[in-house]
Amino acid sequence: MTVRIPLLPLAISLGDPAGVGPELIAAAWAQREAEGLPPFFAVGNRDLIEAAARSRGLAIPVVAIAAPDEAAAVFPHALPVLDVGTAPWAPGQPDDAGAALALRALEVATSLVKQGAAAALVTGPIAKSRLARIGFNQPGQTEFVAEACGITPENAVMMLAGPNLRVVPVTVHVALRDVPFLLSTELIRSRSAIAAAALTRDFGVANPRLAVAALNPHAGEDGRMGHEDAEVIAPAVAALKAAGIDARGPLPADTMFHAEARATYDAAICMYHDQALIPIKVLDFDEGVNVTLGLPIIRTSPDHGTAFGIAGTGTARPGATVAAIRMAGECAARRATAG
Amino acid sequence: MTVRIPLLPLAISLGDPAGVGPELIAAAWAQREAEGLPPFFAVGNRDLIEAAARSRGLAIPVVAIAAPDEAAAVFPHALPVLDVGTAPWAPGQPDDAGAALALRALEVATSLVKQGAAAALVTGPIAKSRLARIGFNQPGQTEFVAEACGITPENAVMMLAGPNLRVVPVTVHVALRDVPFLLSTELIRSRSAIAAAALTRDFGVANPRLAVAALNPHAGEDGRMGHEDAEVIAPAVAALKAAGIDARGPLPADTMFHAEARATYDAAICMYHDQALIPIKVLDFDEGVNVTLGLPIIRTSPDHGTAFGIAGTGTARPGATVAAIRMAGECAARRATAG
Repeated sequence: MTVRIPLLPLAISLGDPAGVGPELIAAAWAQREAEGLPPFFAVGNRDLIEAAARSRGLAIPVVAIAAPDEAAAVFPHALPVLDVGTAPWAPGQPDDAGAALALRALEVATSLVKQGAAAALVTGPIAKSRLARIGFNQPGQTEFVAEACGITPENAVMMLAGPNLRVVPVTVHVALRDVPFLLSTELIRSRSAIAAAALTRDFGVANPRLAVAALNPHAGEDGRMGHEDAEVIAPAVAALKAAGIDARGPLPADTMFHAEARATYDAAICMYHDQALIPIKVLDFDEGVNVTLGLPIIRTSPDHGTAFGIAGTGTARPGATVAAIRMAGECAARRATAG
Repeated sequence: MTVRIPLLPLAISLGDPAGVGPELIAAAWAQREAEGLPPFFAVGNRDLIEAAARSRGLAIPVVAIAAPDEAAAVFPHALPVLDVGTAPWAPGQPDDAGAALALRALEVATSLVKQGAAAALVTGPIAKSRLARIGFNQPGQTEFVAEACGITPENAVMMLAGPNLRVVPVTVHVALRDVPFLLSTELIRSRSAIAAAALTRDFGVANPRLAVAALNPHAGEDGRMGHEDAEVIAPAVAALKAAGIDARGPLPADTMFHAEARATYDAAICMYHDQALIPIKVLDFDEGVNVTLGLPIIRTSPDHGTAFGIAGTGTARPGATVAAIRMAGECAARRATAG
């Protein structure tokens, strides 16, 4: 039942060429054997990735491929790169040409995965404000990929996953003061249900246990500190239970994330950005993976930004990129086996 | 300059007798040598503490004292207890008699420390809703102690401290939706300044470095996700700097709490309960100490509640009580040395 069948290679989009994306793709390839990574190819520009690799002291072979089906043969001895444009390698100095290359890489990589020419999509870090300058009108890569797949943004659910914790923020990039007004029983219920289904399909968790966080301190303490826990979140948990999902909550968020508590659930459903991101970045700072749940394709991303300030200095750590590649491969293998 | 001078004993209030407070005082005394704890005495009821100790298998000597000055001679060979009332030991079954004893213990212990008969106050956990039934009209022990010391509640500042992190929540037990409206530049500035002064006076940090958290994701990202970071928090940081305090911020809260970030500051100033409590409970779940800063006396408390559900079962861990006693002793020694 769990036999691994041969996988197509994964497609990794370059990310902003002025950021740490290109060098970390090279660093991950250099660790492919030690880390047991599945075959992958980069979508971007061969010369640029080679230059980025050399800046880290990685004199690795980087080979241009004409199509994804060439990647498997190349991967064992060289990093395969599908050229989709050119831009100079100028670490820490983002410009429009680099943003255009990053966007083109994202578009092509997404398209190849959708077409079935690659097993999963791993996206390198972009700077949204840079891409917006050249006409990118999505809030982020997650929304871009969702639209490309014909999924409404509400049904594409962000999960951050590390070795110690998985968290799903129900609201994400909004002001804290707006959070209580954006939360609804249906939003919490639907994101939780999507998360539960994805944990089963892509993460191999037969009966996912969800811990649903409260919004207020001490889960509102019987309404003395806010009414959303009882009026908005509790009904969502009840609806999830009624649908056969093993959900608990609303739970006081401060006592959800120590080791004993984490052992009782497979994912924490959080109400806002920092409630989810604070604990996972405490626990899994260098290995956090951003996974988009609810898509017809597998998509992961290292949970960090472009880090323009350290690009080219050799100090960026590849742990999250390695983890994103490994997780994408594992999820793709599960779908392939199930399919 | 750091010579330790002989200290008066510390006074520990019982906490709710139906909770884990009494047994954890006994457990801490049993570990006094291994943990190098300073002399202390409990304020409560001898027979009750002895019964609570025996329920954990601790057949320790418990000796009633008539006054604090008897504690030092008793402490090496028995747990000294100042009797201030009676209540049966009924773990997990809080009642009004127990609440009355808890309140009396808190009142007497606070008074003894104020009078200079004990070096510092450690408070056992109470259930606020139980004490409210018998006329206690403070939001919590912190406010009670502040008022007893003639300090306004705004000037008594809660800090949670563990081996890995110190956090100061600027707002505490309020609904999340109220937080943006309760925060003000002056509140953030004054609590931070009190924290900085206490870190120097009581914790021996000559030039405390404060990391001030943002309210919104990514510190608001230039106003795209909330304006409080720029309009309310940044001016507080500027005012602190102008006063010669080493403060930085507003900083995105999710990247403030991993090990490398924590090494850059002595305390994190947080905007609300869970922003402060999530990271410290991830890192220091069993050893968190609640310290009240800005008081004329030293006051600490284990950072957990009454835990009625496990009282008497022998499973409650004494780490936080031990840490609260040790920290109170260290702070008192610094004041005594400085004084």
